[in-house]
Amino acid sequence: MSAQAEKQVVILGGGFAGVYTALYLQKLMTASERKAIHVTLVSNENYIVFQPLLPEVISGTIETFHCITPIRRIARNTRLVSRTIEQIDLEKRTVRLSPEYVPRSLLLPFDHLIIALGSRLDYDCVPGMREHAIAFKYLGDALRLRDAAIGVLEEANIEADPEEKRRLLTFVVGGGGFSGVECIAELNDFLTVAVREFSNITRDEIRCILVQSGTRILPELDESLAKYAHRILDRRGIEIQLDTRLTAISSDGALLQNKTTKVTEKIETRTVVSTIPSTAHEMVAQLPCEQDRGRVKVSPCLDLPGFPNVWALGDCASVPQKDGIASPPTAQHALRQAKTCARNVLASIRGKPLKAFDFTGLGSLASLGRRSAVANIMGIKLKGLPAWIVWRCVYLSKFPGLDRKIRIAMDWLLDLVLPRDITQIRIFKSEEIHQEHFHAGELVFRQGDFGNKFYVVVKGEVEVVKDGSVLSCLGENEMFGEIALVSDLPRTATVRAKTAVDLVSVARPAFETLLARFPGVHANVIEALKRHGVDTSELVINQDPQASCHDHDHDHDHDGS
Amino acid sequence: MSAQAEKQVVILGGGFAGVYTALYLQKLMTASERKAIHVTLVSNENYIVFQPLLPEVISGTIETFHCITPIRRIARNTRLVSRTIEQIDLEKRTVRLSPEYVPRSLLLPFDHLIIALGSRLDYDCVPGMREHAIAFKYLGDALRLRDAAIGVLEEANIEADPEEKRRLLTFVVGGGGFSGVECIAELNDFLTVAVREFSNITRDEIRCILVQSGTRILPELDESLAKYAHRILDRRGIEIQLDTRLTAISSDGALLQNKTTKVTEKIETRTVVSTIPSTAHEMVAQLPCEQDRGRVKVSPCLDLPGFPNVWALGDCASVPQKDGIASPPTAQHALRQAKTCARNVLASIRGKPLKAFDFTGLGSLASLGRRSAVANIMGIKLKGLPAWIVWRCVYLSKFPGLDRKIRIAMDWLLDLVLPRDITQIRIFKSEEIHQEHFHAGELVFRQGDFGNKFYVVVKGEVEVVKDGSVLSCLGENEMFGEIALVSDLPRTATVRAKTAVDLVSVARPAFETLLARFPGVHANVIEALKRHGVDTSELVINQDPQASCHDHDHDHDHDGS
Repeated sequence: MSAQAEKQVVILGGGFAGVYTALYLQKLMTASERKAIHVTLVSNENYIVFQPLLPEVISGTIETFHCITPIRRIARNTRLVSRTIEQIDLEKRTVRLSPEYVPRSLLLPFDHLIIALGSRLDYDCVPGMREHAIAFKYLGDALRLRDAAIGVLEEANIEADPEEKRRLLTFVVGGGGFSGVECIAELNDFLTVAVREFSNITRDEIRCILVQSGTRILPELDESLAKYAHRILDRRGIEIQLDTRLTAISSDGALLQNKTTKVTEKIETRTVVSTIPSTAHEMVAQLPCEQDRGRVKVSPCLDLPGFPNVWALGDCASVPQKDGIASPPTAQHALRQAKTCARNVLASIRGKPLKAFDFTGLGSLASLGRRSAVANIMGIKLKGLPAWIVWRCVYLSKFPGLDRKIRIAMDWLLDLVLPRDITQIRIFKSEEIHQEHFHAGELVFRQGDFGNKFYVVVKGEVEVVKDGSVLSCLGENEMFGEIALVSDLPRTATVRAKTAVDLVSVARPAFETLLARFPGVHANVIEALKRHGVDTSELVINQDPQASCHDHDHDHDHDGS
Repeated sequence: MSAQAEKQVVILGGGFAGVYTALYLQKLMTASERKAIHVTLVSNENYIVFQPLLPEVISGTIETFHCITPIRRIARNTRLVSRTIEQIDLEKRTVRLSPEYVPRSLLLPFDHLIIALGSRLDYDCVPGMREHAIAFKYLGDALRLRDAAIGVLEEANIEADPEEKRRLLTFVVGGGGFSGVECIAELNDFLTVAVREFSNITRDEIRCILVQSGTRILPELDESLAKYAHRILDRRGIEIQLDTRLTAISSDGALLQNKTTKVTEKIETRTVVSTIPSTAHEMVAQLPCEQDRGRVKVSPCLDLPGFPNVWALGDCASVPQKDGIASPPTAQHALRQAKTCARNVLASIRGKPLKAFDFTGLGSLASLGRRSAVANIMGIKLKGLPAWIVWRCVYLSKFPGLDRKIRIAMDWLLDLVLPRDITQIRIFKSEEIHQEHFHAGELVFRQGDFGNKFYVVVKGEVEVVKDGSVLSCLGENEMFGEIALVSDLPRTATVRAKTAVDLVSVARPAFETLLARFPGVHANVIEALKRHGVDTSELVINQDPQASCHDHDHDHDHDGS
């Protein structure tokens, strides 16, 4: 063993960029370097998501866990730390990680830092997106979307009100890039097959809408291929709204605005998926370095100018290519950047010169489901079945790990002969305290409804309507909805959004705990009751602390009820 | 078509008993009856859980969703309503169901009611069970346990403190019946295989403990088979504590009491699974009829004495058998009861005499994992590999649906050659406001810890310790933990449970929303700060309502951090 100095190399991010940098580092190190250079990878999850297969999880073409693979199996000799990053300190050269079981943070010092944190969905650009849209990026998102789709079918099947049934059977996907197109294609395929098992729903009642702000879908691809894809989707009954933006989302519907005519239309729907737009990871946004639209600017050698031995790559980095443009955020680029980054980190440790990143892409592929796809590979355009075969071959060969390759191939085989799954797993609980958005004119609740939430106005105004006449108007920080919760009676009035409004809602179990445990909340509620004309002297407010606990039970009584 | 009167038959419960009653009703009805008799099945889930295969989900021997099958595929012509039951009114002959998307209840009138609601875990018999134990009954439980097991391995692999590492690597399963034995066998198998991928953990460091209150495991089986199973588990390193009860559970460990010596021991652990004991479903407990230890007493013909055309079967019913004992809560009995119930419901509609239930069981099977099992089938005792082969054949043949049979057979095949999955999906969020239990002497938090929760005492007492000396003692309804949350400093003191204590904890995002939106909470916190000696005049309390929303983000940033 040489008397080499010990080095701490810390990689942040468990996507392709981070994991493959760890893999290439291990491959390229000499035996003595392996003993002296300690590579630590920080990732919130202990698996890598293979994004191209995520849409197939919605339709059940592949088993849920087959679109992910354990990081430990790819980067075998890397120390994996499965925590959330709290702070990156480029001055003190440390990374602070969140506590897990024991409430103490973990501090990782580094000699080399590799930032590969990817991007995240920008929830703040559209009102209601955070609260009411399903993102489409992680495994949990795909599961949530699948559950939501089956849930609305279940409800639509027993819904007597035609208007509500229409709302339940309408699906909106925002974003006409790869992710949005593949998502709506698989979702539409799944609904088409699943609907056969619901006796009160026909295929014609289902409406799938793709919303794209550009003038065509798939801007990543050649126009002729995009047109082909458009025709295929159109033939399957998917509505494509071009030149249109999602401007607000509530639990009842989405507002769409035509960019040219500026006309706004409300689409009544219970399911909105957002595949756009992405923004910088929180930790990346806070870095004291030059950024380009949420991406850290690096040199062609992937190092951060001004910060020695700090590197960035993947979707979170703006990497200049030889052709002058910035490297696009795709897995094929991330993989090649990972190789360059690993080489350069080692070159810098060895005191050798760095090499520039020199890859400009092999092509693009988009699956359209049902044995159809579009592809542009090294200048050759493919569409339909041949493109679909290429799509499957390319992604199967790229999927990390032989065991997963076999499992996916088997899934594809079984999918040819066996029916698709329509089980709704329902393991997602909604937050007890969360924010909700309502468009102007929408009802928060209706007189006579069952009361299960208490509200505080955050922004905007609501009006209280009883038997047709407006009683009052409530603004910022005013509370409502407490009467039905403390009295167990139906809603005594209708509450309607006067303007677009953001509310904080507290669900019944949390409300009961707060009422019993916080004298301040109790006082606030009594005050609100008085203001709403309720005689509080005769009211016995449930202060049994167990009440809320028993309510939680409903979530556990899965099969029995 | 005959001029038969329309009949509403409502079945409550989506387990084997309910779903197979629906299936047999459809099979036994004549064509004209099918038009006049409307069968509705109410189930919280749209799938049936095949309990015997649930333990294999932990180990990943079968794919997660393969232990469930869609109800629509079994009971094809039944109207399925996927809602929670709020009220059963035997006088008015209606069932009220919870609202789903629209906040309005659904009222189902019935002519015949079939109650098959199963049983539920009794959380209230052991302090801390509701808050800190993982149940083992539903699909979500198996997923949660698998995630928890991988989570502690991840943490143990990077844990520097040997005491905390030991705690992370200790697993306790309560209940030595079928469910508990199969659960610990599969859990132990999984850990044995998974640990190979964690470089800092050896198999010897893992401790699996089975706690059984009786004097032997598997009381459902013959003593010689139970002894064999005991030896097999023992040889694999599983500790079996007989004659022992779980008496309390906290997030740090479980208290075990020897029933003979009354000595209590604390096992430090992060993972406690409970497979015991079961109690009546909430809706069943409220029924105005005779019950026997949480089970509704029915006649041998499965009808409820005193309530015409109301029937009960499965785990929620106490069905007298010909041999004098009550029918045990197993799937084989539920299936036969379903047939009897369907026959009798139709007989009663047709005005024909009812038949009594006459099945006493074919035998019992318990898998011990790793190609071993014990079985007693029609008086023949089997153990080891032959019993395991019988176990697999019996359950594969009993699994509803050909498609699932094929998928499971394929899983078993692939399991022989491919490595097991070690991905932790982390889609379970902890509640923002929930109750926690601490044993006397346990620390709630330690001076210097990161502060992420605010607490209110529900029952018991805690003491505040600073630099070694006790500052104060807090009892019911007193608050603590606010300083670290409003000031973003580490905990300024240690808080220790003086007695066994129940606390309500509020996580940081919910705390920030409450602080910003409820003037009463704000006042309570200021008051608590003053009482704890903090000069509130200089403190700027974050009242930015967006603060809490941004915090939610952490949950979404799965891959990037």
